Amino acid sequence: MSLAGLRIVLVEPAGPINLGAIARVMKNFGLHNLVLVNPQCDPLSAEALKMAVHAKEILESAVVVATLPEALHGCVRAIATTGRVRSWEILLENPRTALPWLVEEPEKPAALIFGREDRGLSNEELNYAQRFVFIPTSQNYLSLNLATAVAICCYELSQSVEQRQTQTLPQTELASLDVVETYYQQLESLLLKIGYLYPHTAASRMEKFRQLYNRVGLQTGEVAMLRGILRQVEWALKSQRDSENL
Amino acid sequence: MSLAGLRIVLVEPAGPINLGAIARVMKNFGLHNLVLVNPQCDPLSAEALKMAVHAKEILESAVVVATLPEALHGCVRAIATTGRVRSWEILLENPRTALPWLVEEPEKPAALIFGREDRGLSNEELNYAQRFVFIPTSQNYLSLNLATAVAICCYELSQSVEQRQTQTLPQTELASLDVVETYYQQLESLLLKIGYLYPHTAASRMEKFRQLYNRVGLQTGEVAMLRGILRQVEWALKSQRDSENL
Repeated sequence: MSLAGLRIVLVEPAGPINLGAIARVMKNFGLHNLVLVNPQCDPLSAEALKMAVHAKEILESAVVVATLPEALHGCVRAIATTGRVRSWEILLENPRTALPWLVEEPEKPAALIFGREDRGLSNEELNYAQRFVFIPTSQNYLSLNLATAVAICCYELSQSVEQRQTQTLPQTELASLDVVETYYQQLESLLLKIGYLYPHTAASRMEKFRQLYNRVGLQTGEVAMLRGILRQVEWALKSQRDSENL
Repeated sequence: MSLAGLRIVLVEPAGPINLGAIARVMKNFGLHNLVLVNPQCDPLSAEALKMAVHAKEILESAVVVATLPEALHGCVRAIATTGRVRSWEILLENPRTALPWLVEEPEKPAALIFGREDRGLSNEELNYAQRFVFIPTSQNYLSLNLATAVAICCYELSQSVEQRQTQTLPQTELASLDVVETYYQQLESLLLKIGYLYPHTAASRMEKFRQLYNRVGLQTGEVAMLRGILRQVEWALKSQRDSENL
């Protein structure tokens, strides 16, 4: 499954910086099809191309049309985004709830529609969509930048398409419990020797260390490092004792 | 619960357009505290203010500091973002997995750290964070615009806070990063003294310890315990030295 068939439709975008940023974030999340309805700025202006960085080809291949129905030609699913609560009755959905539906049939064209920077989509334009997404924002400042709204939707779509695994790089090798246990024994022995632990409370204090290191999931190299320190402390103590006894 | 206490920390940002867009999206999602580490552009330039639209006050109240540790002063939790896979062993997490942890103790300062537009954060800078977020992007174009990355993280944080309203959280009291840093300094100093570390390799060896302890999320009592051991080792070494000199 991929997002390659999805169209990002922008109605009368006016900011070349936004267009460039949108092209970039589309490519970041594996989208390619940008459709501009009656754009109010040049998608190939220097500002737009600069913001697109390595996604200039998305601006170059953007399809320019005169009306929203043309932009939706052939689409089976369309979601419109809106930045404000409307007086009429439409169900505003969270991106996470609604957007996965858009790519349920990835072999068929689908569209995600964004309105003008200053006043969004008209009610008539909204009516071309089947569902409506509202990105929840603070009451103190509701209105998202257009490119930011596109970015959040592209990110949500990519998350819904690929529930990617958390990456661990490279593979970590957990230390064997025997080795960790030997470390605990050596630590306890040293701490008793230097007077940090007392015999009658050693066990309960050592539990704190066990909890700490068990929580971290010690790796083989890390236990070796910790044991190396103990050896070096022992050595430092011993060499002083030896010189003392000469 | 809110995101109001969270700091967005930008290390050496160079693009005024990005700064403006970041201020706007922060206000959109209820964040206010912007900290700039050695910024390479003027956060109050015309371009930045224009992009901020109704969030100019966030640029005006941004705190400018010289170093990352200053930016993290008083913080208990810090997450760093990275746009590339690193050679060394760190666990890269998805924003959705990792970011909610950042606001588990909303009354305590926490920081979300973003690197330079062109080359992100250095390994040394990454080591000031306890967890690491990687926003999964397409292999064809991995690198997100800085403002886009901030927007996605702010959005995820706001989503996690909304969901959290109903949940209860386990109480843990994480140690402040300042205290942990003091422990690292004391540890390094002792390890140099006993000959476990050599001056020319100390920094790289210490990185391993930082990684280990950052991973565990040290609690206040645990740092006190670890520092107690250092003091006792110092004391044991000193008392032998003293008796030697009698």
